[in-house]
Amino acid sequence: MNYIITIGREYGSGGRYIGEELAKRLHIHFYDHSLLEKVVEHSGFCMDYVKENDEKKENFFSYFSFNGSYNDLSASQKVSIAEFNTIKKIAETESCVIVGRCADYVLKDYPNVVNVFIYAKMEDKVKRAVKYYGIDEKKAEEIIMKKNKMRASYYNFYTNQKWGKASCYDICLDSSIGICETVEVILQYVQKKLQIKE
Amino acid sequence: MNYIITIGREYGSGGRYIGEELAKRLHIHFYDHSLLEKVVEHSGFCMDYVKENDEKKENFFSYFSFNGSYNDLSASQKVSIAEFNTIKKIAETESCVIVGRCADYVLKDYPNVVNVFIYAKMEDKVKRAVKYYGIDEKKAEEIIMKKNKMRASYYNFYTNQKWGKASCYDICLDSSIGICETVEVILQYVQKKLQIKE
Repeated sequence: MNYIITIGREYGSGGRYIGEELAKRLHIHFYDHSLLEKVVEHSGFCMDYVKENDEKKENFFSYFSFNGSYNDLSASQKVSIAEFNTIKKIAETESCVIVGRCADYVLKDYPNVVNVFIYAKMEDKVKRAVKYYGIDEKKAEEIIMKKNKMRASYYNFYTNQKWGKASCYDICLDSSIGICETVEVILQYVQKKLQIKE
Repeated sequence: MNYIITIGREYGSGGRYIGEELAKRLHIHFYDHSLLEKVVEHSGFCMDYVKENDEKKENFFSYFSFNGSYNDLSASQKVSIAEFNTIKKIAETESCVIVGRCADYVLKDYPNVVNVFIYAKMEDKVKRAVKYYGIDEKKAEEIIMKKNKMRASYYNFYTNQKWGKASCYDICLDSSIGICETVEVILQYVQKKLQIKE
């Protein structure tokens, strides 16, 4: 039985790392940046083009500029569609963890999917952003808020859901209890929902 | 060490029952309707008055009608304030589980609090509402949506937060995996956050 765990995450919450640890514990594939290689393979786009347009926020006016033709789509819309198609292809062939890219919404009609959302208190996000991404501590809060606003815009544009609204996911957790601890709790939920073992 | 678990919950999600089971497993007090007895004891209001004005949604215009005097408050505002004071008193004296009444927000500056939000898929909420509250199946979806809209209005009025937004809580779960299963996952989170044992 194939199963997929999707991870939505606030910037600085450790969501990507939590996803990686989950995949290791369950001996399944982990897709974050590595999804882009698959997108290149499936779509024919070059890596630079995919990278540049990955998880890009859309402008409000994009709602109105689309006339139903593929040629009318923006570069980020084309890449997003290629990503969504790749996510569906992956979900049909293997169990895995997928970070971001509206994967929860893309796979909403698939069986055996567990949708997770990870967030954290601002002070913990700042600590992580400074430590792991080398961001200036004084500017960290502003950068984190901006990045998360962009993630919300991107998600809300492509789905008819609201990024970070609890009921859009199976389980949402504040990772401030610790990365390993958060992984343990998610594993328990996954095992209960899908009845699988590590 | 005293600790408090607060439960926000969608109508029909089993949140109240999950809270009761959590309290049993942790051998601590459970407050839902029983909170009202404490409110009567502390406030001097009679039970009928408290019951009638418990968790009542506020009108948008209530924001503007308040002139800073206690006498200007509506009955539901007076009861809500009495409830919030009672919740604080309880939190200072014993460990417990408290359902609803904005307890997460009321206790936001208290240590050792775990805020939980419970929701479920509409089909599961309908099943529970029909089975446990004897609601007509045809009208169930409409009633559930109305009740949850009221809970959101009540919460959003008294807090500067958004009911059901993941980051307002420590952990949010879809209880469709089962009541006992949801209790188990929450217990693990609580134990990891507070380092307590059953």
